[in-house]
Amino acid sequence: MIHKPLAKLFHRAKPGRRPGISHTELPTTTPATPVEISHIDYGPDTFTSQPITDLPAFLATPLPPGFTVRWINICGLADTNAIAQLASRYQLHALAVEDILHIPQRPKVETFPADTPDRVGLFIIAQMNRLIDNAVDTEQVSICLGANTLLTFQQRPGDVWDPIRERIKLPGARFRQRKTGYLTYALLDAVIDHNFSILEHYGNTLESLESQVLEGNAQNVTAHIHQVRRELLLLRRQVWPMREVVHTLQREDNDYISDETQLFLRDAYDHAVQVLDVVETYREMAGGIAETQMTIVGNRMNEIMKTLTMVAAVFIPISFLAGVFGMNFDDVPGLHFPGAFTTFALTCTAITAAMAIWFRRKGWW
Amino acid sequence: MIHKPLAKLFHRAKPGRRPGISHTELPTTTPATPVEISHIDYGPDTFTSQPITDLPAFLATPLPPGFTVRWINICGLADTNAIAQLASRYQLHALAVEDILHIPQRPKVETFPADTPDRVGLFIIAQMNRLIDNAVDTEQVSICLGANTLLTFQQRPGDVWDPIRERIKLPGARFRQRKTGYLTYALLDAVIDHNFSILEHYGNTLESLESQVLEGNAQNVTAHIHQVRRELLLLRRQVWPMREVVHTLQREDNDYISDETQLFLRDAYDHAVQVLDVVETYREMAGGIAETQMTIVGNRMNEIMKTLTMVAAVFIPISFLAGVFGMNFDDVPGLHFPGAFTTFALTCTAITAAMAIWFRRKGWW
Amino acid sequence: MIHKPLAKLFHRAKPGRRPGISHTELPTTTPATPVEISHIDYGPDTFTSQPITDLPAFLATPLPPGFTVRWINICGLADTNAIAQLASRYQLHALAVEDILHIPQRPKVETFPADTPDRVGLFIIAQMNRLIDNAVDTEQVSICLGANTLLTFQQRPGDVWDPIRERIKLPGARFRQRKTGYLTYALLDAVIDHNFSILEHYGNTLESLESQVLEGNAQNVTAHIHQVRRELLLLRRQVWPMREVVHTLQREDNDYISDETQLFLRDAYDHAVQVLDVVETYREMAGGIAETQMTIVGNRMNEIMKTLTMVAAVFIPISFLAGVFGMNFDDVPGLHFPGAFTTFALTCTAITAAMAIWFRRKGWW
Amino acid sequence: MIHKPLAKLFHRAKPGRRPGISHTELPTTTPATPVEISHIDYGPDTFTSQPITDLPAFLATPLPPGFTVRWINICGLADTNAIAQLASRYQLHALAVEDILHIPQRPKVETFPADTPDRVGLFIIAQMNRLIDNAVDTEQVSICLGANTLLTFQQRPGDVWDPIRERIKLPGARFRQRKTGYLTYALLDAVIDHNFSILEHYGNTLESLESQVLEGNAQNVTAHIHQVRRELLLLRRQVWPMREVVHTLQREDNDYISDETQLFLRDAYDHAVQVLDVVETYREMAGGIAETQMTIVGNRMNEIMKTLTMVAAVFIPISFLAGVFGMNFDDVPGLHFPGAFTTFALTCTAITAAMAIWFRRKGWW
Amino acid sequence: MIHKPLAKLFHRAKPGRRPGISHTELPTTTPATPVEISHIDYGPDTFTSQPITDLPAFLATPLPPGFTVRWINICGLADTNAIAQLASRYQLHALAVEDILHIPQRPKVETFPADTPDRVGLFIIAQMNRLIDNAVDTEQVSICLGANTLLTFQQRPGDVWDPIRERIKLPGARFRQRKTGYLTYALLDAVIDHNFSILEHYGNTLESLESQVLEGNAQNVTAHIHQVRRELLLLRRQVWPMREVVHTLQREDNDYISDETQLFLRDAYDHAVQVLDVVETYREMAGGIAETQMTIVGNRMNEIMKTLTMVAAVFIPISFLAGVFGMNFDDVPGLHFPGAFTTFALTCTAITAAMAIWFRRKGWW
Repeated sequence: MIHKPLAKLFHRAKPGRRPGISHTELPTTTPATPVEISHIDYGPDTFTSQPITDLPAFLATPLPPGFTVRWINICGLADTNAIAQLASRYQLHALAVEDILHIPQRPKVETFPADTPDRVGLFIIAQMNRLIDNAVDTEQVSICLGANTLLTFQQRPGDVWDPIRERIKLPGARFRQRKTGYLTYALLDAVIDHNFSILEHYGNTLESLESQVLEGNAQNVTAHIHQVRRELLLLRRQVWPMREVVHTLQREDNDYISDETQLFLRDAYDHAVQVLDVVETYREMAGGIAETQMTIVGNRMNEIMKTLTMVAAVFIPISFLAGVFGMNFDDVPGLHFPGAFTTFALTCTAITAAMAIWFRRKGWW
Repeated sequence: MIHKPLAKLFHRAKPGRRPGISHTELPTTTPATPVEISHIDYGPDTFTSQPITDLPAFLATPLPPGFTVRWINICGLADTNAIAQLASRYQLHALAVEDILHIPQRPKVETFPADTPDRVGLFIIAQMNRLIDNAVDTEQVSICLGANTLLTFQQRPGDVWDPIRERIKLPGARFRQRKTGYLTYALLDAVIDHNFSILEHYGNTLESLESQVLEGNAQNVTAHIHQVRRELLLLRRQVWPMREVVHTLQREDNDYISDETQLFLRDAYDHAVQVLDVVETYREMAGGIAETQMTIVGNRMNEIMKTLTMVAAVFIPISFLAGVFGMNFDDVPGLHFPGAFTTFALTCTAITAAMAIWFRRKGWW
Repeated sequence: MIHKPLAKLFHRAKPGRRPGISHTELPTTTPATPVEISHIDYGPDTFTSQPITDLPAFLATPLPPGFTVRWINICGLADTNAIAQLASRYQLHALAVEDILHIPQRPKVETFPADTPDRVGLFIIAQMNRLIDNAVDTEQVSICLGANTLLTFQQRPGDVWDPIRERIKLPGARFRQRKTGYLTYALLDAVIDHNFSILEHYGNTLESLESQVLEGNAQNVTAHIHQVRRELLLLRRQVWPMREVVHTLQREDNDYISDETQLFLRDAYDHAVQVLDVVETYREMAGGIAETQMTIVGNRMNEIMKTLTMVAAVFIPISFLAGVFGMNFDDVPGLHFPGAFTTFALTCTAITAAMAIWFRRKGWW
Repeated sequence: MIHKPLAKLFHRAKPGRRPGISHTELPTTTPATPVEISHIDYGPDTFTSQPITDLPAFLATPLPPGFTVRWINICGLADTNAIAQLASRYQLHALAVEDILHIPQRPKVETFPADTPDRVGLFIIAQMNRLIDNAVDTEQVSICLGANTLLTFQQRPGDVWDPIRERIKLPGARFRQRKTGYLTYALLDAVIDHNFSILEHYGNTLESLESQVLEGNAQNVTAHIHQVRRELLLLRRQVWPMREVVHTLQREDNDYISDETQLFLRDAYDHAVQVLDVVETYREMAGGIAETQMTIVGNRMNEIMKTLTMVAAVFIPISFLAGVFGMNFDDVPGLHFPGAFTTFALTCTAITAAMAIWFRRKGWW
Repeated sequence: MIHKPLAKLFHRAKPGRRPGISHTELPTTTPATPVEISHIDYGPDTFTSQPITDLPAFLATPLPPGFTVRWINICGLADTNAIAQLASRYQLHALAVEDILHIPQRPKVETFPADTPDRVGLFIIAQMNRLIDNAVDTEQVSICLGANTLLTFQQRPGDVWDPIRERIKLPGARFRQRKTGYLTYALLDAVIDHNFSILEHYGNTLESLESQVLEGNAQNVTAHIHQVRRELLLLRRQVWPMREVVHTLQREDNDYISDETQLFLRDAYDHAVQVLDVVETYREMAGGIAETQMTIVGNRMNEIMKTLTMVAAVFIPISFLAGVFGMNFDDVPGLHFPGAFTTFALTCTAITAAMAIWFRRKGWW
């Protein structure tokens, strides 16, 4: 069993620190292994996708004509220099920069005043769960949304968005006719839907645990049930605020989400609700399995004790009898009577039979 | 025991896929065994009911005069070609088509803009539970509602709607004077009411489990209680959103539900609430039975241990005594005294009596 | 113990049936033993009370002048013919007729449009609990309320309303100056208040169970606690919607409830809340007793096992010693030493004393 | 342990009785031992406090000039004659009179129309808890509030209001400049605050129970924990509606509570919330102690059983060996070999050592 | 284990006392060891920080020009003389003075009418948790907020605000350009964020407890789990109202909190929510660990009992056999047959093997 270290459930905020991190105060050191930064620019009839090597030069050039959306994806948070440049270029609020860097945060949506198209007006934190080697891997993704710019910050390379990249690449895709709001929806939807594959894994695990418990293999199952309950608890903790995020996006009035995208967000919301619904159902099931296991352990104990008690109740009295006739008293009666042993054997048989009937009546076998 | 595979609690959405399925992108292959499609057309004085063999031709012909409602029922989702034709004819939204095909979805109501009478404006997903061979069989039914058209998509043939078909067939039935909204109510009401027969089954099962537990047949009952609790959990999970569905239909303003039908929906809502109420009561009862079983197992263990302890406490000391006088020491006292054995026997009786009195005082028998 | 059959928690609605039962479709057969129907007519200065034998004739005659309220009470639902006549005369809605006959329904209030004084505009379902032979007897009463008519349908003769009949009979009673709304309040209040006597019964039962558990008579108590918890669960299930009924009557605007009666309904509501409050408190108490019993069972087991372990730990080692000196080896040491037995006896005493001290240290006695 | 009789949780309302008790129908018999009735009249510069012996005469005299508040306190409900006079003089509503006499009621606030200054317009029921001999003593106090009159009805002499009486008596106290609303606040605040001393008692009890459980004195603790949980349950049941009472007083618009008094009521509300908060915390703590006790009982059982099993597992096999060589077979091998006993002793030691190592490996000691 | 005395969960209000403490009635005695009082005055370009020795003189001098905020911090509540002077100078409401002195109170926000800039208009109670020697140390801090004055009352020296003092001290800090509202936010934020370090401690403790339980070291763990659950319960009790405090500050309209500070308060609110979220998750985890431990204790008991039962079931029957042949009957059969012992030995082996197979079939080893 791999224990997810509990202390990583939250960023340990330094009490009393200045709130927010202005881009001017980020350290400008660049990490040894450069962080992967890439961009996808697209418009109804245009598409460019490439890694960014010279960030300052890239940020200086505007979005070419014919393009409507620029999506910049940053995989890794080590290059604070790059983050400072992006924050400066797109006027990210200091509180947002802090939340991007201080990981993990609770999923949330924040609105910031955005007067210029370049400015980021909507800031979303999401928790992206993936199943890697049968363990849930959680990564914070921060989405910064401007009129025609979308920044995504991931903790490490690898995400659930490759199908989206494929869809954008497709010539003539309707995706390209939509704006950043739709892209945001698509990214969040992919994050939410990926939980279904995790749930499938837990569904199978519960199936297997349940049959193990009902078959009585109670031994190693206890720790496993415990682990599943704990992981479902953590999963619920992450998906619950994701549901709120989608709900806030739907409800709050903002310029980035079109009416059509609202329709799709409703769908994403339904999925988030279904994920939570299944997590709750699984949690109750896991709890039910644990309770059933306790009853089975109790029943099994009864079985064991019945065996012991029956053996003891039969043999202890007749052993005493045998002991009596092994005593060295001169006057133990019957020692020299012919047929004494037969009488003894019959007595023992009678006692055993009486005990057997008594246990039978009690329903012990 | 039959375990319902847990992983089938939800459709495992492919993350990052394009939302919705347009009818143009459905595969046009027709399945080997054709899917049953039938229609019922009716008006105040008219009634036609027959299977549809040539779908394109059927869809091309309009509803004959004198008819006010056309109900098309599709049993099986394999014929995506037919679904595509229906979706195209009645302008089903791509998100609705996706929900029809990606099974199971959570019960819900969706409203789509419907400008022409042919267009489907209300989309409902319901979970239809039936009791087949003492096991709950769940099937998703999708209901698409237009001004005078109603489409129902089932997973497989066989449903709970035959009494409704009979009622429509009846000449002069008031049913025929009503529109699609009333038909929708009738279908949902039948789906909800069918849960009562399932609840009756669980009621009887709980009765039987309860008396088994109270009589002490704790052995095979544990797994059975576990199963019932689990199935009630799943039942609640399905009926809960059904209640919301009826509630939304009542509350939301739409053109399909007349004031009179609202009155009937209130009745259906009451039934859904009663189903949930009984499911909750049964769940608490099953929980109570499980807890009682644990106490009974504990009590029974006490009984077993008391028996063992009494046997051991009586015979172990006197066996020791017998052992003492079986030792080969030269100077074991009393071996050669006349009446030694009688003394021994009396001592044993005295010890036994003392023990008996002591146990009696402790209330052990 | 008498088990209330669980399947009787709800009316098993036939799915897909036509909603409501029109009075024209009720079977007109009259039952062998006639159903008791009686009426009380009263006004400020008038009072008549008598059984109705010729229903059609009775229904044809209007309320005599000077009378303001006519209360017709039907004890038994077998005479569908009579019910059809009443439904026809007072224009009962088909859904109400269905709820009167399909028993049991969840308590509720329904408003129907009432344009003529004769028409029934308010329909109430209540569950009347009575304590018969220490068991809760539940009966559905349906109350149909018109401007000056009140119909009550009971399942069987016998109710909690005799004190009300006495109060109406009293010459000059203020009761007579009031209308049907107040009578409805009085009937509901009597139904709710009768639960207090049931609660008193359960209070005493819990008292007795609690002292039995604390005194350790754990044997037959388990099933009894289980039964009380189950019955309190069912009681809560019935009183909860009764509270809603009174609340709805208070809140909803209707012509039958005067401002003064509102004041009294507030009082009835307070009583319903108090009943629920006490039911919840009793349920938590019963749960607490069950938990305490489990701990006591565990403690008792410890006592039993300590006894066994002490007996075994003392006697098994010294029995072994006795066995050793009973062996037939030629060279068992010490057999022929004088004082051997005394040494043996002292050794045994020493072992016993050591064990006793050890157990004492462990706090076992 | 003293069990508070459970049936006293509510007044067993006689179903079907006429609601409310008019003062004209109260019996006019005076009890043998007269009920204590006293009054305090005060104004900014005036103060009178004395027992009332001649009630009719007293009620006939108006409040002297210079006095603004008259507080009449009735200790005991036996003198229905006096209550009838008070109810008649201050026009108490019949429902209020009923609630004063039918004890206990749930704490609540009722507003009645009050057109004359003498009339009682606000009626409050409170539950006053006091700690008498380490047991919670609960008494209903009914407060009737008019423009310049305040009636308080207690069940028996002795209350928590002596400090308030002292404060009024103090010459120049700001208390005297305030009206009946403030006096009501002061009385309720004293009732609420008295719960803190009860909580202190339970806090200490829980402390002691917790350390007893953790030290393993599980014997008599079980019943004590049970009792504390039950009493905290009853305490919560009483304080919860008290919070509602203060909340209703704050929210509802009435002529008796000035803006300044609102500020103080907010403070009383905070205290009620804090009392509930601590009750809930204590309830969860008591639950936690009970659960911990069960685990400790289980652990202790394991200890006991380990001891038994180790003793049995070591001695039963070697006892068998000793038994073998005590058999009277002619050909038991080794009986006559020199060194046989030593071999036997070594074998026994070896078996014991092997068992010891095995148990050690299992972590049993 | 250190038990936090439970009775210190609340201030034991003296029932019936006069509400609030006017500054004129505070005792004027000064404590032997003087209480630390210091102030920090700052403006955009100014900064002074020093201990106050002569409080009356200090309070007489107004805030020098160029300074916008005066923060006076009082460490210790013993010097009621000083508190009286402060309360008089800044016109603290008597209810606020009472809450400052009567410790602990539940965290809350109170608004008082503030007509002059010097008057305190907002009064906040917070609970400051710190981890001292691995134990949570809780201290009440009361914050009084005026237009340009902020008073903080602590119970004892030492707080979590040193980083804030450092930030104010920094020349040119943006902090200095803000008013008392921002300072209040900063103080509350530091108080809330400090809980993260406490949570980190509990996270590690749970980690360690969990692995101990799963490895089976059930002995000393029980009390430790109990303690952690109890402390998390107390922590939740303190943080929950802190969340309300920040929420009320955000929602309520007041003159002290600027729009920009609202943005920061939103951030503080998010942190409070996250703290509660983690506390709840830890509580559920601790509960899960406790439940798992009970199952493991049960499993372990089964193991122990299996061992005992197997030893007993094998040896008790064959010991009986040995006893039989040790009897002194004349006619015990087979004693003198050659090969009798071998037969006996084979029988014993056969019985043992049969038992072994039987246990194997039962899955006991």
